[in-house]
Amino acid sequence: MKNQERVVIENIAPTINNGDFYIKRVVNEIVTVTADILSDGHDITAAAVLYKHEKEKKWKEVRMHPGHNNWQASFVVEKQGYYSYKVVGWIDYALNWQHGIERKIADNQHVNSELLEGISYVNKCELKATASEKKYLKHLADIFADANAYQESITEAVSERLHRIFYNYPEKILLNSSKEFQVYVDRLKARFSTWYEFFPRSASQKNGVHGTFKDCEKLLPRVSDMGFDTLYFPPVHPIGEVNRKGKNNTTEALKGDVGSTWGIGSKYGGHKDLHPQLGTIEDFKSLIKTANELGIEIAMDYALQAAPDHPWVKEHPSWFKWRPDGTVQYAENPPKKYQDILPIYWESEDFKNLWDECLDTLFYWINCGINVFRVDNPHTKPFYFWNWIINEVKAKHPDVLFLAEAFTAPKIMQQLGKQGYSQSYTYFTWRNNKHEITEYVEELTKTDQCEYMRPNFWPNTPDINPFHLQHANESKHIQRYVLAATLSSNVGIYGPVFEHMMSNPIPGKEEYLNSEKFQICNYDWFKENNLITIISKINKIRFENEALQQTNNIKFCNINNDNLIAFYKWNDSKDSELLIIINLDEHYMQEGMLQLPLAELGIGNHHHLKVKDLITDNVYEWNNEWNFIQLHASLPFHIFKIKK
Amino acid sequence: MKNQERVVIENIAPTINNGDFYIKRVVNEIVTVTADILSDGHDITAAAVLYKHEKEKKWKEVRMHPGHNNWQASFVVEKQGYYSYKVVGWIDYALNWQHGIERKIADNQHVNSELLEGISYVNKCELKATASEKKYLKHLADIFADANAYQESITEAVSERLHRIFYNYPEKILLNSSKEFQVYVDRLKARFSTWYEFFPRSASQKNGVHGTFKDCEKLLPRVSDMGFDTLYFPPVHPIGEVNRKGKNNTTEALKGDVGSTWGIGSKYGGHKDLHPQLGTIEDFKSLIKTANELGIEIAMDYALQAAPDHPWVKEHPSWFKWRPDGTVQYAENPPKKYQDILPIYWESEDFKNLWDECLDTLFYWINCGINVFRVDNPHTKPFYFWNWIINEVKAKHPDVLFLAEAFTAPKIMQQLGKQGYSQSYTYFTWRNNKHEITEYVEELTKTDQCEYMRPNFWPNTPDINPFHLQHANESKHIQRYVLAATLSSNVGIYGPVFEHMMSNPIPGKEEYLNSEKFQICNYDWFKENNLITIISKINKIRFENEALQQTNNIKFCNINNDNLIAFYKWNDSKDSELLIIINLDEHYMQEGMLQLPLAELGIGNHHHLKVKDLITDNVYEWNNEWNFIQLHASLPFHIFKIKK
Repeated sequence: MKNQERVVIENIAPTINNGDFYIKRVVNEIVTVTADILSDGHDITAAAVLYKHEKEKKWKEVRMHPGHNNWQASFVVEKQGYYSYKVVGWIDYALNWQHGIERKIADNQHVNSELLEGISYVNKCELKATASEKKYLKHLADIFADANAYQESITEAVSERLHRIFYNYPEKILLNSSKEFQVYVDRLKARFSTWYEFFPRSASQKNGVHGTFKDCEKLLPRVSDMGFDTLYFPPVHPIGEVNRKGKNNTTEALKGDVGSTWGIGSKYGGHKDLHPQLGTIEDFKSLIKTANELGIEIAMDYALQAAPDHPWVKEHPSWFKWRPDGTVQYAENPPKKYQDILPIYWESEDFKNLWDECLDTLFYWINCGINVFRVDNPHTKPFYFWNWIINEVKAKHPDVLFLAEAFTAPKIMQQLGKQGYSQSYTYFTWRNNKHEITEYVEELTKTDQCEYMRPNFWPNTPDINPFHLQHANESKHIQRYVLAATLSSNVGIYGPVFEHMMSNPIPGKEEYLNSEKFQICNYDWFKENNLITIISKINKIRFENEALQQTNNIKFCNINNDNLIAFYKWNDSKDSELLIIINLDEHYMQEGMLQLPLAELGIGNHHHLKVKDLITDNVYEWNNEWNFIQLHASLPFHIFKIKK
Repeated sequence: MKNQERVVIENIAPTINNGDFYIKRVVNEIVTVTADILSDGHDITAAAVLYKHEKEKKWKEVRMHPGHNNWQASFVVEKQGYYSYKVVGWIDYALNWQHGIERKIADNQHVNSELLEGISYVNKCELKATASEKKYLKHLADIFADANAYQESITEAVSERLHRIFYNYPEKILLNSSKEFQVYVDRLKARFSTWYEFFPRSASQKNGVHGTFKDCEKLLPRVSDMGFDTLYFPPVHPIGEVNRKGKNNTTEALKGDVGSTWGIGSKYGGHKDLHPQLGTIEDFKSLIKTANELGIEIAMDYALQAAPDHPWVKEHPSWFKWRPDGTVQYAENPPKKYQDILPIYWESEDFKNLWDECLDTLFYWINCGINVFRVDNPHTKPFYFWNWIINEVKAKHPDVLFLAEAFTAPKIMQQLGKQGYSQSYTYFTWRNNKHEITEYVEELTKTDQCEYMRPNFWPNTPDINPFHLQHANESKHIQRYVLAATLSSNVGIYGPVFEHMMSNPIPGKEEYLNSEKFQICNYDWFKENNLITIISKINKIRFENEALQQTNNIKFCNINNDNLIAFYKWNDSKDSELLIIINLDEHYMQEGMLQLPLAELGIGNHHHLKVKDLITDNVYEWNNEWNFIQLHASLPFHIFKIKK
C-alpha cells in the first residue's frame, strides 16, 4: 500500500484499550486530548482535534499545540450522549513558506523567487477568508508579483496578519487522521451523588411490623434533610419461598422468617413484580414521585438470579442449567451450596431471549420512574452482556446510571467500568491508614482508571461490617464518613446501621450479626445524634462546594504526622478550592505541620491566605508554607475553604 | 451486538501501537506473550497463544499460565519472515467439573448426579484422545453411570490422569480471540553485527591516489582479521559536478576536488551507477565476492537525494520541486543553503513511479550481492515510504537489513524503528558518564523499545567527532570501543580514523577537520598499534560468547565508584554469562567494590565463583557478594567469563 501522508499520529490519550471502550465525562466537563505528532524533515507540522456529538453531522475543530512532551488540545462536552473525537495532522506549507522567507530576509537574501511562490499560498487562502482579509490577500498577490513593491512585499510577507490568516485557513494537503474514539457523557449525577441505603421492610416505625412503601415515604423528608440525593433499596421483588433462608443465613427458614431480599421470585412474581408485603405498584410509584419532589432519586437493585420458585424457572427452563438428575443447578461454590438461589445459565442457547427479558425488565422499571440501578454481583455475569445492556438502555434513556456492586479482583472491577458502568463500589471500605488511603486514591485518580472508573466510597454496606468499624466509637464513624465524602464525590452509607453505630459483628467476620439481609430490623428512625448532625453538615458542604463534586482533582499534601491526612481539592474552574485535613486516630488529639501545595495553589511562599473551617466557621490566616494543625478526636477534621 | 463469550482478553504484550507495527526477533529467539485473561464468576478459565509462520496454514498452540500479575506463554520463532500470533481464551467446563466434584468429595457429599454430568465431558474428549486414553475414557463413562462402581468412580473422577486428558483436549466453547499481531523474524545478523566503515576513495596505499574497489579488496583480509563482519562504504555512485563542494565543505570546489560522496549523480549516472574512478561493476561484484569469502558483507549507503546533474532531474523533473523562477529547489534550512543537493519532492504527483524507482534501485544492488543498507537521513523522507519499501524488499529478500542513520529527536528515531528499520544509530556516541550510559541502555532494553529498536553503537562516524574523543588518548578509545561492543551486540566504527586516533576537530565543533567527506585521505593502512590489537581481541570475544551477541539481557551491577561501570550479560539459555567492568577514567587507576547480581546469577551469598578475564586469561576466585576491582587506565576493562 502506498501512502503519501507525512504526519504520524500516535499515543493518543485519553483512550481505553485503543478505543474499544469509551472514556467517560459528565456534562460540561473538559476532554484534554494529547498525542504524538511526528513528521519527517523540518517542515512546520499542524494538528487538530476534531469532535462532534452523536447527533451532530459536522466535526468541530480545536487546534493542538505542542507542549513539553506531546501535542495537546481540549474541548468541552456540553450534551449527554456519545461524542466522537479524532486527531488529524498535516504539513502547513503556507506557514512553512513564511517561516523560510522570514529567515532569508533576516539573512539579507534576495527573495524574489520566494515572493512569487508565496502568491499561490495567498491565493489558496482567499476562498475561506473574510471580505477584509480577501482584500488584503488580493493586495499581497499583486505586490508579491511586482518587483517595484519589493520593500512592501517583504514587510507584508512576514506580517503577523498574514500569519494569522495562514494559521486560520490551513490547506490540509495529505491530511492524516487517527481512528475515531468515543466519550460518553452522563448527567452530573454520575460524578456527584450522595447515597443512603435502607431496607424498605424495616421502614415501619412500629416494632416487629413489616415495613411498606408507604412507611418509606414517611422517611423521605429525613433522608432529604440529611442531604442525601439517592435512596437505594435492596430488592423489592417477591421473595422466594422454596429453600428460603432463615435468620443469620441459616438454611432452614422458620415460620415467619422473611428470607433474603436477593432470593427473587415466588408465586407472586419475579423481577418485574413487587413483594406484596411492601405494597402495590401504585404505592411504589407514589414513593418515587414524592422522593423526586424532595430531590431524591430511588435507586433499585438489579440482581439477575432467581429463587427456585421464580416464574422464569417454569416459563423459561432453558435459562437455567438442568442436571442429569432432573433438578435445576443451584448456586454453589463447592463445597458451599446456596439452594435458595438459582444462577442464570448464560450459556443458554436461548440467550437472546434471556438478554431481551433482562433489558425489558430495566425498561419496565425505568418507565415506572427509576433512573438509577445498583447492580448486584455484576462480576458473576458475562462482561459483554453488561456492555450490551448498558448501551441499549443508554441509547434510549441517557439519564440512567448503573452502579457496579463488585468487590473482587482489581482488574475485574476495572473491566466492569470499561464495559460501561457509570459508578463502581471500591476498596475504600477496607482502606484505613494514611498510606493505604493515599495509594488507593492515587491509583483511582492518577492512572487511566480516572477515565472509566467512577468510584463510589461506602464506609459500610449490608454485606460488609469492616473490622475497623466493629464496636468503633463516634469519632471513627465521623472519620470514615468525612474521608469517603471528601475523597470521593460519590459516597454512600448503609444508613440506619451506620448512623446509629450498630456494628455488632458475627465474631471474627466482617458481617453484621442478625443481618437485615435475612430479617426485619427495627430502628428508632427519628433518634438524633452528633454523628447524624455531622453527616448532614458534610453533605451540605458537598452541595455548596464544587471542589467536592468531583474526585480527580486531588493533591495529597505533606503533613508530618501519619495520623493526619491532608489533601487539596478544586473544581476545574478553580473558583472552589478546599483543603481537607482528617485525624485518623479516633482516640487521641493529633498535631502536625501541614505543607501548603504552593504550586497547585498558584501562590508563593509568603502569600497571605485565609482558610475558613466550614463546620465551625473559624477562620485562620496563614502566611507561611508550613502551618500548624491540631485535631481532637471529638471533631476530627477540617474542611477549609481557601480564600486567597 | 449480542456476544455470548465470557472471557475478556486484553493488555496483550509485546505489541506495538496495538498491532499497527510488528515486533522484531531473529531466528531462534523467544517471544513471551503476556495478557490479562478475565472471566466472570468462578469458573476455570484457560488461555493459549496461537502462532504460525506466514507460510504455515495451521496455528500452533502453546497454553498460557497465570502468573503473579498476568498470563504468560512463550514460543520460539524458527524461521525468517513474518509470524502471526494471537491470544485465545475459554472457560474449561470439564476441568471446572473436576474441580467441583473434587471439593464435594472432600466434603463427603454424595456426587451421583455430578458423576452423571461428568459422562458428557468424558465423551467429548474421546474424539481427540489416543487409543489408550479412549479405552480409559470409555471405562469412565461406564462406571460413572454405574451406581455399583461409586467408589472407583470417585477415585477416577479426581484422578491426575483424567485431569491431564481434560487439560490436553479442551472443548473450547464460546472461545474468544484477540486480534492478530505480528513478529518479523530476521537472520541473526540483524541482532549481532560488527561494522567497519571506510571511504573506498581513500583505500589506495599510495599517497594522493584515488582509491579503487581493487584497493578495497586488498584491505579486506585486514578488516576480517580485526573481526569485523560488515564493511560499510559511504556512497559509491557518481559524484555531482554542478555546485560540487570543495574541501572542508566550502561552496566552491577547486580543480581536482573530489566532492561529497553524498552529492549523488552526474553525467556518469545516478543511484544505479558507480563512480568511474572507483572501478567497474565487475570490480564491485568481485569485491563483494571476496568479502563474502572472508565472512564480510558489504553494506551500501542508500541516500535518496540528487546532485543537480543527477540524470533523474532531466528524466523525472516532477520528482523535484520547481520554483517560480524555473530553477529546481535545492536543499535548505533557511538561511543555510545546500546548492549541491536537490531533495526529492515526496509530494510529487508522480510519487508512485518515484517510489518504484527507489525500490528498483535497491533490487538492483541486491542482485549485485548487497544485503545490508545503511540509510542516510531517513528522517527527512516520509515514514510511510520506509514502511512500504522495507516491506517490499523483505517480502522478496528477507536477508536484507536496513540501518537507520538518524540522529534526531527520540520519538522520530523510535518511529523509524517501528516502521521497519532493522537497526538504528543511537545516542551512544554522546553518552559518556556512568549515569548517562546506564540510563540510556536501560531505556533501550527495559522499555518497549527493545521490541522494535535494535541499537547499533558507534563511538564515531564521519559526521561525528565527539568532544570526548577529540585529542583523546588510547585509554579513552579503548574504553569507548569496549563500552560499545559489550553494551550493544551491534557495533561499528569509522575505522581508520578511530583506530589511529586521528581526532583533529574543526575547533569548537564535533566535526573532523579536513573531513574525508569532502576529500581523499591517506592512511598507513597496515600500521599496527595496541588499540587495534585490543579491538581485534574484543571482536573475537564477541564471536565466541553468545552473551555479547544480544543487547537486551543486561543487568547493571552496583559498584561503589562512579568511574567504574559494571554489568552482567547472558544469553537466553544462560550457558554464556559475562561480567563486564570498565574504567571510565582514561587517566587514572580506579578501584571499587563490585556487588554480584546474586538473584540474576541464581546463586547464594557464599557461592564459590570463578571469573576468567578473557583478555588476560587471569582467573579470580570469588566467595562473597562484594568483590574488589582495580582497573588501570592502560587496560581499562575486564570481560569476565563466569564459571559457577
